[in-house]
Amino acid sequence: MKKINIALLGLGNVGRGVWTILKSNREEVMKRSGYEVNVSKILVRDIGKERGINVPKELLTTDFNDILKDDSIKIIIEVMGGMEPAREYMIKCMEKRKHIVTANKMLLATEGDELFKKADDMGLMFQYEASVAGGIPIIQGINESLTANKVEEMYGIINGTTNYILTKMELEGLNFEEALKGAQDMGYAEVDPTSDIEGYDAQYKLAILSSLAFGTKVDVNSVYREGITSVKSIDIKYAKEFGKVIKLLAIVKDRNGKVEMRVHPTMIPKNHPLANVYDSFNSILIKGNAVGDLMFYGRGAGELPTGSAVVSDMITILKNDVNSENYNHVVKNNLWDKKFRDIRGVESKYYIRIRVLDMPGVLGEVTSIFGEYDISLGAVIQKISKKSEKEVDLVLVTHTCREAQIINTIDDIYELKSVKKIKSIMRIEDFE
Amino acid sequence: MKKINIALLGLGNVGRGVWTILKSNREEVMKRSGYEVNVSKILVRDIGKERGINVPKELLTTDFNDILKDDSIKIIIEVMGGMEPAREYMIKCMEKRKHIVTANKMLLATEGDELFKKADDMGLMFQYEASVAGGIPIIQGINESLTANKVEEMYGIINGTTNYILTKMELEGLNFEEALKGAQDMGYAEVDPTSDIEGYDAQYKLAILSSLAFGTKVDVNSVYREGITSVKSIDIKYAKEFGKVIKLLAIVKDRNGKVEMRVHPTMIPKNHPLANVYDSFNSILIKGNAVGDLMFYGRGAGELPTGSAVVSDMITILKNDVNSENYNHVVKNNLWDKKFRDIRGVESKYYIRIRVLDMPGVLGEVTSIFGEYDISLGAVIQKISKKSEKEVDLVLVTHTCREAQIINTIDDIYELKSVKKIKSIMRIEDFE
Repeated sequence: MKKINIALLGLGNVGRGVWTILKSNREEVMKRSGYEVNVSKILVRDIGKERGINVPKELLTTDFNDILKDDSIKIIIEVMGGMEPAREYMIKCMEKRKHIVTANKMLLATEGDELFKKADDMGLMFQYEASVAGGIPIIQGINESLTANKVEEMYGIINGTTNYILTKMELEGLNFEEALKGAQDMGYAEVDPTSDIEGYDAQYKLAILSSLAFGTKVDVNSVYREGITSVKSIDIKYAKEFGKVIKLLAIVKDRNGKVEMRVHPTMIPKNHPLANVYDSFNSILIKGNAVGDLMFYGRGAGELPTGSAVVSDMITILKNDVNSENYNHVVKNNLWDKKFRDIRGVESKYYIRIRVLDMPGVLGEVTSIFGEYDISLGAVIQKISKKSEKEVDLVLVTHTCREAQIINTIDDIYELKSVKKIKSIMRIEDFE
Repeated sequence: MKKINIALLGLGNVGRGVWTILKSNREEVMKRSGYEVNVSKILVRDIGKERGINVPKELLTTDFNDILKDDSIKIIIEVMGGMEPAREYMIKCMEKRKHIVTANKMLLATEGDELFKKADDMGLMFQYEASVAGGIPIIQGINESLTANKVEEMYGIINGTTNYILTKMELEGLNFEEALKGAQDMGYAEVDPTSDIEGYDAQYKLAILSSLAFGTKVDVNSVYREGITSVKSIDIKYAKEFGKVIKLLAIVKDRNGKVEMRVHPTMIPKNHPLANVYDSFNSILIKGNAVGDLMFYGRGAGELPTGSAVVSDMITILKNDVNSENYNHVVKNNLWDKKFRDIRGVESKYYIRIRVLDMPGVLGEVTSIFGEYDISLGAVIQKISKKSEKEVDLVLVTHTCREAQIINTIDDIYELKSVKKIKSIMRIEDFE
């Protein structure tokens, strides 16, 4: 049996998962890869830290150079996360001809270009399945299984924390704060939950997926982003009346070379498969012009699911003959030039909830402004507010229009004396 | 731009899809693969046949040697199907150092061993994503993305025709014959539908998936098989009363190295994702010991979805440098020795519908036999038959027991004078 030395950069959640899998599935890894895999060093910040797993102390080092300068180490598993020094370490390791497996979505979404290029220049393999949607093989799916397709649309639930929160709000009637607290208690949300609940995590992931699907560089800032902090229980209830549920959806559409990318709370039909993705599960639906609808569903986070992606990536490197220098596996992201569409150019249906004074003529005033901007309404519901009988909720659902039309309409509606507040504006996706 | 010549063996449904994709997605294929792909010959039986697509006549040949002896042809796309001469042609082409892409499930399920070995010996790539579940990348998923896992269970809806029929029966109340007729009218079922409705198609596919998931040779005959011809509308109705639906499920479970493989109509909970896979869609749920639950969903058949898998496979070959002779991509199916469990050793819950005479004591007689064989009952319903008031339907649902216990029980129940007929025995899967 051939032997191979690898090193881990980092021993947090994902690192622990990788270690556990390499131990518990030792025979699988050996037979599938053809190699006996030996973790020879692990870079950590604090050697003394209690980690809840049984890793021999002598493997741990706080000195990156111990790993960099060890020529027997052929594969680097980067699971430390963050921008620096992860980026610098990977670049240096590649310069020493070490293949890379990484789970680092932030780095890939922002500096992927430099990393891909270095791997390509050096003829190395650079694997990153774990960077998006944990154990779901969506990267492999796009990079290998869908290459015959023009990807037309992607819709993803790619943040488990927010999906868990929205699930609790939908099924158990919790409000956002209660559901967030529950997610924190379960360990699904961080103490500072900003990255998840404000949609940054999903934004990074969507930038990576779009870049791969369209073979083009994607600036993470061209992905429009809204989090779920403004989702109210009352909107979930109204959604239900329209046969819809609310999900934090990552959406990409290529409309004749103009690509829109956005992450925001979205009302989707209850009978759509994505509507039934609950708890911390992830799911991604891809529409290819040949394959049609293709959906992946699974665990988007967690030690073992993410570790599964990392270790499988490592096996892929080993199967491709780790000692060869002749690879063509690095994805090129300079195949196409795409134009990215600003959120104002997006077309969608909209759900709008407005608090108005309960007086004659208000409905007419409001709806006539929609008319002025050429927006057709699909439904209008007037709800009596519990808070005050002098104010009512006006819920409107539009037909498809441009976001710019909605922005202008809302501006004008705000000017009306009878309008107290625009309580909610949410995009609706019918997958038509 | 590098150029590559390929040839198609066959120009039926899948062949047409491949041709169409190579034309319509020419730019995608070129950029993703780095090659300009030229179809230089297509083997057909009848050059004059009208095919509904615009293929230049001069590409067509009825002589396999035109392709075999053309050394400029580096990749063979085998989409003729069937056992011979497809097997012979692929072997001969590999001896001439041509890489293979095939969609041939029957051949892979029965002679995959010989084909894999030949590819391995010759250092060639042998791709077969299209052989199972059309456009769904389940082969790649198992072979590349889940290699870090012990696969513990797989559950698949992998035959679109039967799923279409069962969908019509469930949602529109059609009986089997009506639904089959509809499937034939829609082109989903063949004039001779045996391979689909008797479960042979799913049996082949499950044999392939099991072989890959367990890295072992699988005799297709060790896959237990029942079709859907015995599924009655009344059983679908009763299933509904228990909160279940009926699907033709392909099931694999590895229980400590003892593997059971079976294809049969199965009652599954209505709220399970697989229960909501409708029409001709396919879906496969895999449980890995690291990744947890992972599900794939998409089009399991059709020109373009299957063509998508074939063309993506071809691109994978091109990306791996078609001229290299250094591959390690062929899956080994001799990694593990597995014991296969006979259907009598399977453990399951069962749904049993018995027609009995409506007389006192019958229920006691029947249920006491279950007791004799140590089978606990979860539910018993006595239904008045419409046909005759002297006979009633007795519907029983067991707790988990061995199939052997059920077989013995049924044998004894048949002996009872009060029992007219065992109308239905169906396995229940709760995914617990």
